[in-house]
Amino acid sequence: SAGDAAAGKAKAAVCAACHGQNGIALIPMYPNLAGQHEMYLVSSLKAYRSKERNGGMAAIMQGQAMALSDEDIADLSAYFSSLPAGGK
Amino acid sequence: SAGDAAAGKAKAAVCAACHGQNGIALIPMYPNLAGQHEMYLVSSLKAYRSKERNGGMAAIMQGQAMALSDEDIADLSAYFSSLPAGGK
Repeated sequence: SAGDAAAGKAKAAVCAACHGQNGIALIPMYPNLAGQHEMYLVSSLKAYRSKERNGGMAAIMQGQAMALSDEDIADLSAYFSSLPAGGK
Repeated sequence: SAGDAAAGKAKAAVCAACHGQNGIALIPMYPNLAGQHEMYLVSSLKAYRSKERNGGMAAIMQGQAMALSDEDIADLSAYFSSLPAGGK
């Protein structure tokens, strides 16, 4: 894995508002991220950043992802992937 | 919930090839679906069907979602949401 989960944790405060402190979204329109595959998270964040991913609540994530470097994306993906699925 | 998880299970065979029998994807480019929020799954499938969601492996899901009715989407989303997160 290229991402640094500890670095990702430090960058994840803004994510928690919608995706939960433990990666479990309290609002059902938003996906749980805990335990998701790191590679998929990287791919999704890049698709939001490039504005290829639209529909649903994508506009919110496009705005968030715009500020992320490739390293930020790798670190955040490593972090959420490392959290236990289901929030346990 | 509008979706029928039992009906969704009967429609989910094709999904299992990439997303796993238990909703845990064996291939890290594909997302785990087990325990994901039903409302988010509905939103994602509709965004693939409308071709609003692009990037990553979206072309595959656009092709799959094209064949799905609103009821199919509701049922499949109810089914995968009902599976235990982490595949336990």
